[in-house]
Amino acid sequence: MTDEWQLSPDRNFDPDPTQRSIARDLYSSVKDLPIISPHGHADPRLLADPQAQLGSPAELFIIPDHYVFRMLYSQGHQLEDLGVSPRDATTLETDHRRIWQRFAENFHLFRATPTGQWLRDELIEVFGIQEKLDGESAQRIYDELDAKLRQTSFSPRALFERFNIETLSTTDPATSALEHHQTLQEEGWGQKIRPTFRPDALLSVDNAGWQNSVEQFSNVSGVSIQDYSSLIQALEAHRQFFKRMGATATDHGVFTPHTHRLSDDEANAIFQRALSGKADATDTAEFSAHMLMEMARMSCEDGLVMQIHAGSFRNHNQGLYERFGPDTGSDIPVGVDWTRGMRELLNAYGGDPRFRLIVFTLDESTYGRELAPLAGHYPALLLGAPWWFYDSPNGMRRYLDTVIETAGIYNTAGFNDDTRAFASIPARHDMWRRVTCNWLAGQVATGIIDQEDASEMAADFAYHLAKRAYRLDAETA
Amino acid sequence: MTDEWQLSPDRNFDPDPTQRSIARDLYSSVKDLPIISPHGHADPRLLADPQAQLGSPAELFIIPDHYVFRMLYSQGHQLEDLGVSPRDATTLETDHRRIWQRFAENFHLFRATPTGQWLRDELIEVFGIQEKLDGESAQRIYDELDAKLRQTSFSPRALFERFNIETLSTTDPATSALEHHQTLQEEGWGQKIRPTFRPDALLSVDNAGWQNSVEQFSNVSGVSIQDYSSLIQALEAHRQFFKRMGATATDHGVFTPHTHRLSDDEANAIFQRALSGKADATDTAEFSAHMLMEMARMSCEDGLVMQIHAGSFRNHNQGLYERFGPDTGSDIPVGVDWTRGMRELLNAYGGDPRFRLIVFTLDESTYGRELAPLAGHYPALLLGAPWWFYDSPNGMRRYLDTVIETAGIYNTAGFNDDTRAFASIPARHDMWRRVTCNWLAGQVATGIIDQEDASEMAADFAYHLAKRAYRLDAETA
Amino acid sequence: MTDEWQLSPDRNFDPDPTQRSIARDLYSSVKDLPIISPHGHADPRLLADPQAQLGSPAELFIIPDHYVFRMLYSQGHQLEDLGVSPRDATTLETDHRRIWQRFAENFHLFRATPTGQWLRDELIEVFGIQEKLDGESAQRIYDELDAKLRQTSFSPRALFERFNIETLSTTDPATSALEHHQTLQEEGWGQKIRPTFRPDALLSVDNAGWQNSVEQFSNVSGVSIQDYSSLIQALEAHRQFFKRMGATATDHGVFTPHTHRLSDDEANAIFQRALSGKADATDTAEFSAHMLMEMARMSCEDGLVMQIHAGSFRNHNQGLYERFGPDTGSDIPVGVDWTRGMRELLNAYGGDPRFRLIVFTLDESTYGRELAPLAGHYPALLLGAPWWFYDSPNGMRRYLDTVIETAGIYNTAGFNDDTRAFASIPARHDMWRRVTCNWLAGQVATGIIDQEDASEMAADFAYHLAKRAYRLDAETA
Repeated sequence: MTDEWQLSPDRNFDPDPTQRSIARDLYSSVKDLPIISPHGHADPRLLADPQAQLGSPAELFIIPDHYVFRMLYSQGHQLEDLGVSPRDATTLETDHRRIWQRFAENFHLFRATPTGQWLRDELIEVFGIQEKLDGESAQRIYDELDAKLRQTSFSPRALFERFNIETLSTTDPATSALEHHQTLQEEGWGQKIRPTFRPDALLSVDNAGWQNSVEQFSNVSGVSIQDYSSLIQALEAHRQFFKRMGATATDHGVFTPHTHRLSDDEANAIFQRALSGKADATDTAEFSAHMLMEMARMSCEDGLVMQIHAGSFRNHNQGLYERFGPDTGSDIPVGVDWTRGMRELLNAYGGDPRFRLIVFTLDESTYGRELAPLAGHYPALLLGAPWWFYDSPNGMRRYLDTVIETAGIYNTAGFNDDTRAFASIPARHDMWRRVTCNWLAGQVATGIIDQEDASEMAADFAYHLAKRAYRLDAETA
Repeated sequence: MTDEWQLSPDRNFDPDPTQRSIARDLYSSVKDLPIISPHGHADPRLLADPQAQLGSPAELFIIPDHYVFRMLYSQGHQLEDLGVSPRDATTLETDHRRIWQRFAENFHLFRATPTGQWLRDELIEVFGIQEKLDGESAQRIYDELDAKLRQTSFSPRALFERFNIETLSTTDPATSALEHHQTLQEEGWGQKIRPTFRPDALLSVDNAGWQNSVEQFSNVSGVSIQDYSSLIQALEAHRQFFKRMGATATDHGVFTPHTHRLSDDEANAIFQRALSGKADATDTAEFSAHMLMEMARMSCEDGLVMQIHAGSFRNHNQGLYERFGPDTGSDIPVGVDWTRGMRELLNAYGGDPRFRLIVFTLDESTYGRELAPLAGHYPALLLGAPWWFYDSPNGMRRYLDTVIETAGIYNTAGFNDDTRAFASIPARHDMWRRVTCNWLAGQVATGIIDQEDASEMAADFAYHLAKRAYRLDAETA
Repeated sequence: MTDEWQLSPDRNFDPDPTQRSIARDLYSSVKDLPIISPHGHADPRLLADPQAQLGSPAELFIIPDHYVFRMLYSQGHQLEDLGVSPRDATTLETDHRRIWQRFAENFHLFRATPTGQWLRDELIEVFGIQEKLDGESAQRIYDELDAKLRQTSFSPRALFERFNIETLSTTDPATSALEHHQTLQEEGWGQKIRPTFRPDALLSVDNAGWQNSVEQFSNVSGVSIQDYSSLIQALEAHRQFFKRMGATATDHGVFTPHTHRLSDDEANAIFQRALSGKADATDTAEFSAHMLMEMARMSCEDGLVMQIHAGSFRNHNQGLYERFGPDTGSDIPVGVDWTRGMRELLNAYGGDPRFRLIVFTLDESTYGRELAPLAGHYPALLLGAPWWFYDSPNGMRRYLDTVIETAGIYNTAGFNDDTRAFASIPARHDMWRRVTCNWLAGQVATGIIDQEDASEMAADFAYHLAKRAYRLDAETA
């Protein structure tokens, strides 16, 4: 049994009294600003249905969150035992109390990790848990969580309001008809919850499911896709539909950020090979490089902000992928060459005042070497928040220390939480606000900026940069 | 309207009172040491002419400084509107007050950047400005600067003396006849202001202007260059001329630091292809790799210190380059392989006691991985100061934290300012002195070094390392 | 003459009083834990012979330690003058007092380096030296050291006990008959001093000495090696012998961590080419990639923990290598691609509960980008301690800051000293304990972990992680 579980009001602030005092002041001026969540993976269904509930503690905290279950997997636990369904479904732990118990007994694995911080913050701040989670306290805490999760005050919509979220964007396959967003728009929640257009599945021409995706996209876009030019037509049309449903952005997950325009004939030749199931890895790479050019062109024309997330080797563990599908914690970053890769796109569109591009990297060695210099030059380019493994106190600190001196803060896109764990949204934004305020306090304490500038910058980091980057200011004005 | 603009006497010092107090003591012991500026881009014409003036505030702070105008460009301002002349010269803002106003209104873009710190330091320390620069104060500050810049006490020579510069090296094309340095030498300023031999234009055989450069070099060196062997002869001769004009070093800007000796016949074959305008990218790469070997050989023989600056993708923005030429803020770093690239050169010359090589990188991931181990082994090799984007408080801190544990401080080359902004020279050296003293204070406070060692090291960082690295001790002795 | 030479009791602790106070408490709880030294290069002969002595001060501190003599070499001193024997042996300083004098006069080169810290710690803590080492004090200190080194209380075995080493693993060529370990086992020291199976020389098929190694290995393993399959048989058999002699691990030094299984026929074809002296660099690379797969397979079967040290360009200075052989300070790291390189091995064996793999990198850019995500996923994989140039206060700090947020501490392998400098073992472990306690204190002071967790983690870092990683808990239980 341990003492009462508590959050330090000064967490993530430097211990030096001078810096800490400045950090506190800055933080107190931004902590209650509304949350702008312009990129993430919340499930729009949960928000479209006023009766929806978040499920059991295991369903909320463990089963859908690869940030969590990968850590237990790394120590020898089987995913089935954590409630993650294999495709063959031969074995699966269905007792959510036992899943929770396993998780609680291994909670020490998350010591000094951001996931550990978020989980603790959620349990204490969102759910009012007062004893430290471990194997001994596990079932008592389960009881308390389970009871609360059944209350309407813990429904997704109630939490959305309580979290003070001004606007949240989901990430939606290009093939989506956006039923839930239509419902939300009809109910007047359209400015609060917006879709994002993500056409990855359509653009990876050697994917097993690619032909299905094209067929689906024909149906949903109303354009019969027979060739490359009708694909382009369908993309343009369905982007417009997303825009009408509130989208301000697109998102592109690519292995490398290589960009290169093909002729329409070359692009169509690849498309035809793909239709007949003959596209290979080279086709995929070339089509991806070309379609990034096309997506940038469309963004110039329709004003949707373009996001690129590059450099993840998806499904590194082939056996696990075959049994459990994607997003099981085995996506591993690789080194990336942004300077050469993005040159053609930036030369073509990087100076276009209609264009905005936000890029995200998992290769921190490119922060200072490539991305900050690029963002500090090309008008269209902003650098996205520290992504994934770097959405953490040290990740943020390295980002700030490495990027800002070259790019300044006004060539960055503020923060996004990128999470599928809905209840962790406030904890994640709070960590960013604390870390940026502490970093600014360090700048003040070392005489680099003055208090006046620091106050404005704190609010910019917490709120304005993201709103401006994703053109949510224009939209909500 | 804001309070009086001030510089904290403790800027760049850690807020911890123990560390800060040690940092103050160390800094006070080195802050008045003369400035050694062994590599930079000051204009020798300004110093050769006792009547020269620095021009308008826009001419001093904005128009020639790509560190400054790139940041405004990145936020959508046109270079023409900042006074930067396009080649076609169709539009150009010629009202320097309006250029200054635009700059002042956007001064917040430089918050937390080293450029912002240098500008503030210059305005306050060199020009005595007392109110914070912004759109409201812009014209009053312009008036004050403009008046001072017309005074003889603000002439380049007067500032040179006031800045307490012991010696400053300019960077000069190999094709230069060094008229200004001749004037300076005649007036007895030859030990104060020295040229540096930079043959890049001659050695990039697929450059548009290459044939012109060769012709010019024939004229200036007095050697008629018809083939590879006469090129070598001309290089050897003109290096001697630079040496007589006070040069102690050469400088080589290359895309990659790959080194490889060709046979003379192979080198001549490339040279002949270049003469007939048929050299391609492979020729350029091979000739560059070979000429680095030759330049090292010549350095062994004539004692000029060799500098290599590698890893910048020059003129990444092709359209801007075509309109405005080079040095417009679109040079973007790439990853570099020093270990394999420099092996042939270091195997051939790295142990030669006559040879000294100083290398500079924009790929910080090579500090600890490649450059510190190389400098900590090869006798000829020193690691140059943090370069360009890393000439900043955090850039310096990362350099010190990553390099020194492996290479020690005595395998580094101290500081150089590398600037074309003459009035920023003291601010840049001051930042280096502050950051190194603060870093040493941290070492003392954590028991790694003692006070006695720290005092010597502070003076080494501030003054002696650079003087020794560039063989200015021998020269001025 | 300087003041008394002292070690700060708070060395490596942050100067902030709050953090320092927590660090002190944590450190005091772990500083007296026994030393687990599971990977290093101590000479088993010294420990097998109760009469052995460590030799002269030059033999102990300088001649065998490339960490030390490389630094003097980098400043122009010749290895011969430091007592390092060239193969031709034309010149060699044999006066150990003069070697010591040269070293002492250049002791300032080690300021702010970990080697400098270890040396100071050893001289003060192990040998009771009380005045600072420099050219003036050199001979007095030599006298004192020399006298002590002749005492039995400074014999290797006496120091082993005094250092409170619980278990130490040496690194032994696969071709070794482990005579010294046999002696140790017979005397009951078998659990204290263990061998490690390192087959690098056997697996580099284009090495000059490869055929000799194979012949030696035939003799020592008792398996006549004629082809690939008998090589495998011999490896399996001799691993068993190492295991009986106390080994719990193997070690593999490779240029790249590329892994790829060949067919047995392909492997045998390379083996046969090698036997006839016709193997080339491609053969070597492919054989290495294949043998890593085989070594992992064997580890699954016999339970020996597999270590991979990758990314060092050995003997970069060819001329020095030819004169002095390997390990003369010219091994230089290169960038490494772990994500693609290790995929085949991790897909095949990374989920096998019998398998444990510990990897070490010299490319710090892979800590956060590749290794922490891999270790935070694959059950078999642990990340080894900061290696070689990064076995230093800042190297450890960067490791902790970059790795732990993603991998947690329980996917790391604790510390190992990797040293051939026997007397430096306590200083190295002490540095790790200080730096980890200080890092944990920072986590407590910023509210990320609580005191209870920090205490457990401090002991894990200092002792338990290494013991568990190398399966020394099972062995000594």
